Amino acid sequence: MEIVKPRTLSGFMELLPGKQLQFEKMAGIIRDAYASYGFTPLDTPAIEDAKILLAKGGGETEKQIYRFQKGDSDLALRFDLTVPLAKYVALHYSELAFPFRRFQISKVYRGERAQRGRFREFYQADIDVIGDGRLDILNEAEIPAIIYRVFRGFGLSRFQIRVNNRKILNGFYAMLGLQDRGGDIMRAVDKLDKIGPEKVRLLLLEDCGLTEDQADQILRFIAIRGANTQVLEALEDYQGRSELFDQGLAELKAVTANLAAFGVPEENFAVDLTIARGLDYYTGTVYETMLLDHPQIGSVCSGGRYDNLAGYYIDKPLPGVGISIGLTRLFYVLDEQGLLNPALPCAPADVLVLPMTADPGPAIALAQTLREGGLRVQLYGEQRKFKQKMAYANKLGVPFAALLGEDELAAGVCAVKDMRTGRQVTLPPAEAPAYIRGALDAGDCPLILEKS
Amino acid sequence: MEIVKPRTLSGFMELLPGKQLQFEKMAGIIRDAYASYGFTPLDTPAIEDAKILLAKGGGETEKQIYRFQKGDSDLALRFDLTVPLAKYVALHYSELAFPFRRFQISKVYRGERAQRGRFREFYQADIDVIGDGRLDILNEAEIPAIIYRVFRGFGLSRFQIRVNNRKILNGFYAMLGLQDRGGDIMRAVDKLDKIGPEKVRLLLLEDCGLTEDQADQILRFIAIRGANTQVLEALEDYQGRSELFDQGLAELKAVTANLAAFGVPEENFAVDLTIARGLDYYTGTVYETMLLDHPQIGSVCSGGRYDNLAGYYIDKPLPGVGISIGLTRLFYVLDEQGLLNPALPCAPADVLVLPMTADPGPAIALAQTLREGGLRVQLYGEQRKFKQKMAYANKLGVPFAALLGEDELAAGVCAVKDMRTGRQVTLPPAEAPAYIRGALDAGDCPLILEKS
Repeated sequence: MEIVKPRTLSGFMELLPGKQLQFEKMAGIIRDAYASYGFTPLDTPAIEDAKILLAKGGGETEKQIYRFQKGDSDLALRFDLTVPLAKYVALHYSELAFPFRRFQISKVYRGERAQRGRFREFYQADIDVIGDGRLDILNEAEIPAIIYRVFRGFGLSRFQIRVNNRKILNGFYAMLGLQDRGGDIMRAVDKLDKIGPEKVRLLLLEDCGLTEDQADQILRFIAIRGANTQVLEALEDYQGRSELFDQGLAELKAVTANLAAFGVPEENFAVDLTIARGLDYYTGTVYETMLLDHPQIGSVCSGGRYDNLAGYYIDKPLPGVGISIGLTRLFYVLDEQGLLNPALPCAPADVLVLPMTADPGPAIALAQTLREGGLRVQLYGEQRKFKQKMAYANKLGVPFAALLGEDELAAGVCAVKDMRTGRQVTLPPAEAPAYIRGALDAGDCPLILEKS
Repeated sequence: MEIVKPRTLSGFMELLPGKQLQFEKMAGIIRDAYASYGFTPLDTPAIEDAKILLAKGGGETEKQIYRFQKGDSDLALRFDLTVPLAKYVALHYSELAFPFRRFQISKVYRGERAQRGRFREFYQADIDVIGDGRLDILNEAEIPAIIYRVFRGFGLSRFQIRVNNRKILNGFYAMLGLQDRGGDIMRAVDKLDKIGPEKVRLLLLEDCGLTEDQADQILRFIAIRGANTQVLEALEDYQGRSELFDQGLAELKAVTANLAAFGVPEENFAVDLTIARGLDYYTGTVYETMLLDHPQIGSVCSGGRYDNLAGYYIDKPLPGVGISIGLTRLFYVLDEQGLLNPALPCAPADVLVLPMTADPGPAIALAQTLREGGLRVQLYGEQRKFKQKMAYANKLGVPFAALLGEDELAAGVCAVKDMRTGRQVTLPPAEAPAYIRGALDAGDCPLILEKS
């Protein structure tokens, strides 16, 4: 038989078993956090009619998309989860209860130039709350609590959720007579962390064509920092000059007002006037999330409020708020930085049962007993020497091995060996599940380490 | 804005929220069952190099596959999970511990002619155990226990796991001098349930060109039925005439010997000599699973033993055994037959918290308390009339609503309403999680009903 050399396409993540289990745990924490806030899971097709997926059209998207013909159909792979959501909500509008809260953790596809840490197939983990005609600000206020729960769930505490409000920015630009220049200005301001205020000033003057006074006012504005109350106080000085600004400030106050009730500590939250999010799409609160010890990673969870989810598909105003975690990239970066906890159990089983006698019956029964006790159990059926069996157990990394030889069978017991400590105990099979579960539960283990 | 009419491609399942939650529960039961037997989750890319995916080539596969160019790359969407597994095992051979046990529950793609109940994108839920050079029969013996756990997990008892062994069939054909005709004969015999023995006999005579004696011997052979011990006894009469047959019978005995230890009741298992599974791929034990009250659905979980998983990619004999559940189709058929339990809770939240005062703070805090108690909680933030709020709760189908009005706040309590019974109690927020969880746990609810 001619052999085709196996390979996985570049830009596609394919993990070894241990890493895959870490990935699943990470996805599971996100899923549980989303579900605990009353979001319902959706699973839309990966393939859609290209005409529908590209209704908005143009730009980078169109170049990156995987698009192909099948028969007469012009098809494309989804490049995000927002466009399929818009289609879904428009299509099933009359069958949904609004506000409609959904989460989706699915793969999306972008045929970008392959480079290190860039993926062509990657998971996004999104939530959105969609209102029918209107949506209360309380939904925007709740988002930081959800982000907080996800990242605490990972085992982290050194992260910060940063929020701003696009109405504040646009209102402020309007005060300066720059209401039509918001996009350009935001793009310049967005570089503040990377290039510093002096260079942002130059961009504002030269690229955006602002006056010195306008540029200075903008720099003064984005220099407003401090505790939430300080920032809000400073913003009050600008009140009464733009209706949009005043509305944005009221919204920002509503978002910050109930942080304590939402269980979000002050140190994990900051109002940050430099945050804009690139997309024109956002119209109100915007969110970013930074890992404080790893700012170079950039935002690990972002999103915001928008006014019109599905205008391309339905003639109804459907405002919403949503956030997205780029799960594949986040996992890749955490792994690369050595932040995935190596102590996290990622064996395929909790116990490997090793029959040591010709009749496998008692070992099979023991394995069933352990499973009924809630454990993940692998029965090792291969005819190998004891040393090879233990080598296999070690390679799998199972925390426990259960051994059944003639002596144990005669005494009505099994031997349970803790592979991590080497400690071996002998006990009746019925007592083995509780013993093993007790030892497993003992180590509560964060998924991600704060520092490498 | 010009409106593009939203639609989902035909042959692609897209579920409403309640149904999606049922689907997720079904997938979750499969996942937990697979994991409890020590299988590790894998997640291979949906897109692979077409040359690799089609290494075997030819046939229906090539016509059905979604294949497309991107830049210079010839790409294709996976059409099953076995070929990507073969690639994975060949590629990562030196990094895996053998036997290697993996499960994968993922979407696969086949551009078949669309018809009712046929899907172009569908989930397969597969397990495989792969040995390096050899694999003990105990792995084949364990498979019925896993199938049993999955279908019991669905809430079913009226199902039957049917097994046969290809070596028995091929050995028997060899006794008749028909060793080269196995494929044709199996295809004819496979129609027994549909067309009856008389017509199978005609097929054997006319299409396969067998003699009357050969056809009669085959019909007599496949008419062997009864309890496992009876079938095995009848098979013993054929012993000593074909080494292959004898080996197959020994394997079948090993597979049936430990059913009780594996916890599989007699009534859920049958040796069935008419089962062959179409694919040449299988070389030993083969499995099918029937829902006894719905034979027209066909097998809902099938698989078997094979000798050479990855011969197209690596020069190593990698025998294995695996089964597959066509999850999307199974879900569709069960739904169509009215067998998905309508009593199964499929609301996005356990509790809807309804603030009734201007300050949402106390309602937010109550929602947090309920979440910390392990509940899925949605906070309803919209400014609507009470009646509209309750209508929303009913449309979502949440089992509980928690209300916080001025009276409750003054008394330091919350009102918890069971939406199913209308019963409302008043209690301190700290006691609400246990009260609600107690009421939720009370109804242990099978996913699938035995009869519609």
